[in-house]
Amino acid sequence: MDTMRWKQGCLEILDQTLLPGRAEYINCDRHKAVCDAICRLSVRGAPAIGAAAAYGLALGAAEIEAEDRAGFIVAVEKIAADLAATRPTAVNLKWGLDRMLGMLRKHSAVDTGLLKEALLEEAHAVYREDLESNRRMGAFGQALVPGKAAILTHCNAGALATAGLGTALGVIRAARDAGKDVSVYAGETRPLLQGARLTAWEMLREKIPVTLITDNMAGYLMARRKVDLVIVGADRVTAGGDVANKIGTYGLAVLAREHGIPFYVAAPMSTIDFDITSGDQIPIEERDPREVTHIADVRVAPAGVNVWNPAFDVTPGSMVTAIITDRGTACPPYAESLANLRRGSF
Amino acid sequence: MDTMRWKQGCLEILDQTLLPGRAEYINCDRHKAVCDAICRLSVRGAPAIGAAAAYGLALGAAEIEAEDRAGFIVAVEKIAADLAATRPTAVNLKWGLDRMLGMLRKHSAVDTGLLKEALLEEAHAVYREDLESNRRMGAFGQALVPGKAAILTHCNAGALATAGLGTALGVIRAARDAGKDVSVYAGETRPLLQGARLTAWEMLREKIPVTLITDNMAGYLMARRKVDLVIVGADRVTAGGDVANKIGTYGLAVLAREHGIPFYVAAPMSTIDFDITSGDQIPIEERDPREVTHIADVRVAPAGVNVWNPAFDVTPGSMVTAIITDRGTACPPYAESLANLRRGSF
Repeated sequence: MDTMRWKQGCLEILDQTLLPGRAEYINCDRHKAVCDAICRLSVRGAPAIGAAAAYGLALGAAEIEAEDRAGFIVAVEKIAADLAATRPTAVNLKWGLDRMLGMLRKHSAVDTGLLKEALLEEAHAVYREDLESNRRMGAFGQALVPGKAAILTHCNAGALATAGLGTALGVIRAARDAGKDVSVYAGETRPLLQGARLTAWEMLREKIPVTLITDNMAGYLMARRKVDLVIVGADRVTAGGDVANKIGTYGLAVLAREHGIPFYVAAPMSTIDFDITSGDQIPIEERDPREVTHIADVRVAPAGVNVWNPAFDVTPGSMVTAIITDRGTACPPYAESLANLRRGSF
Repeated sequence: MDTMRWKQGCLEILDQTLLPGRAEYINCDRHKAVCDAICRLSVRGAPAIGAAAAYGLALGAAEIEAEDRAGFIVAVEKIAADLAATRPTAVNLKWGLDRMLGMLRKHSAVDTGLLKEALLEEAHAVYREDLESNRRMGAFGQALVPGKAAILTHCNAGALATAGLGTALGVIRAARDAGKDVSVYAGETRPLLQGARLTAWEMLREKIPVTLITDNMAGYLMARRKVDLVIVGADRVTAGGDVANKIGTYGLAVLAREHGIPFYVAAPMSTIDFDITSGDQIPIEERDPREVTHIADVRVAPAGVNVWNPAFDVTPGSMVTAIITDRGTACPPYAESLANLRRGSF
C-alpha cells in the first residue's frame, strides 16, 4: 500500500489516522491540503513527511501565476515556508524543501512552466530515492541482526513512514529476507498508537511474527530477557549523534543499556542535521492535550486535567549502539563517523 | 467517595471501570458477586481487594447452611479459596482471607450464627484499620517529601485503591496537609488507564495540581528535570524488598535511578509477603489481550495481532530508595529493616 502516490496533478496521501480500520486516500490538489495532512498526521514519519512536503511544494508552485523567474522563486519560497511550519522536529521536512529550492535556484530555465515541471520531477526523485535509501539501510542494518532475534521497536518506522520498506522496519524486513528468524515486539506508542495501529498492521501483512505491548511493558520485557535488540527510526539526528524520535524512545534507550541490549537507530542521511551538534538544539513539538485525554474520540481522563504532550524526546548519542544510515553504519564517536559518512569516506 | 460500603447485608462496591465518567455502585449480596467485581477490576488496588475479599467471605459465610462448627469452617475455607483464586499477585487478598480464617478458627463460639457475625465484624475491622494504616503511612511518608516537590506516580495508589486516603496518594495528601507545595505527574497507566481515569480524578477532586502524561513520557520528564521524586504503591513486597506493582513500575525505577531521583514505595505491612524473599517467586497475572487491543471498546490494533499483557512487574529492592509502611519507613537492606518493622523493633 503506497504511503502517497501522484495521480494526474494530484497527490493522494494515505490517511494513516484511519488505519488499520480503513485505508483511504486524501486527494491533495493544493499545497494547503498537504500542510493539513502533515499537521493532522495523515502522513507521518520523517522521510514520508519530507517527500510529502516536496510534492506539496510542486503543487503550490503549479498554482503560482507570476511569469518572471525571480517572482516565481519568491512565491515558491513562501510556499516552502508554509510547508516548513507544519511540524518542527523532523528535519527531513526542511531537507526536502531545501533540496527542492536548491534545485530551483540552480535551474537555468527562465520559463516558469519548465520550472514547475522541474519541481515536480524533483519531488518524484525525492520519493523514488527514499525507497532506494531504505533498501540500502536494510542491507547495512540486517548485518547487525543475529540469526535468531526478537526485536523491540517503537512507533512506526516502516513503509508507512517512508516511500516504502521503512527505516527500522526496513532493517527487520531485510533480516527476514536474508533468512534470519526474526520476531517483533511492537510498543503501542501512546498517545497516537502508531505501533498498535501501523507497525502491528505492517508486520501482520508481511507475515513477520509480531507481539503488541503497551509502552510501559518494555522494561519488564527486557528484564525477562525476551528482547535481543532494539531498533527505532529517527526524526532528527544531530552531527553529534543525539537522536530525536517519537516520545518514549529515550526511555527505551535507558532500559536497553540497563539490560545490555543493543540499541540501534535507522535513519537516512536526510535525517541527519549537520547544522547542530547537541540534542538540546532540536525543537520538540508539543501537541494537543486531547491526544492524551481522548482515544478514538472517547474521553479517558477527567475534564479539566492538565496534560504534557511532547511528541518526541531526545536520546543522547552515548546511548546509541550504532546509527544505520543509507551510506553505511556509524558507530561512536558519532561526530567523527557521521562526518565520514557525509564526506563519503566510509 | 467510598471505595466500598456495607449496607443492610450487602456490600456495595464502587464500579471503578466506569470512572471518571460515572460513579455507580455494584450491589454484592453473594460472595460470587464480589469475586466477579475483583476479577473485572471494579474494585482494584491491593488494600481494597483485601478488604473486599474479607467482606466477600462474610457474605459467603452468611449463606452457609451447615449447623455444626466444623462443617461451617470447612465451607468457609472453600469460599475463601474461591475468593483467593480471583487474582494472583496482590498478597493483601490472601492476607485478608487468612486473617478472617485465623480469627474464625480461634473463635470459641459453637453457634454458626455467632461465627457469621464475628466474620462480618472482622471484615469491618479490616476495612476500618486500612484507613488508619493509610493515615500512618501518610505521616511517615510525608516526612520524605521536600517543601516543594513535583511527584511522579503510576497507576492509582489512592483512596480508590484502599479504604481511603491511599498509599502513595495518601503520602501526597499528607504532604499537602503538612503545608508542602506538592504537584503530581500522573502516568496514565496503560492498558486500563488507572492513572488517567482514577489518579487524575482523585487529585482534581482534592485540588492538588495534577498533570497527566502517557507512560512513555516519564523518561523525558525526568531528563528535563521536571520530577523531584517518584512514589508508587505495591501489590506485593517480598521480605527482601522486591516490589511487585502495576506494569511499568520497574521501568520508572530504572529511569529514576538513571536520573538520581528518589524512588519510594508506599505499602502497608499487609502487602509484605514474609513467606518469600525474591521477586521471582511472585506470580505475575497475565490478562486478556483485549485490554491492549481495545480502549473503551474501540479496537485500536489490527485483528489477529499477538499480545503480551502482564498486569504487574517486579522492581528489585536494590532500586527502591525506601519503603514507607504503616509501621515506619524501611531503608535498605530490606531483609533487615522489614523484619525489624515486623517484629515491632523500630
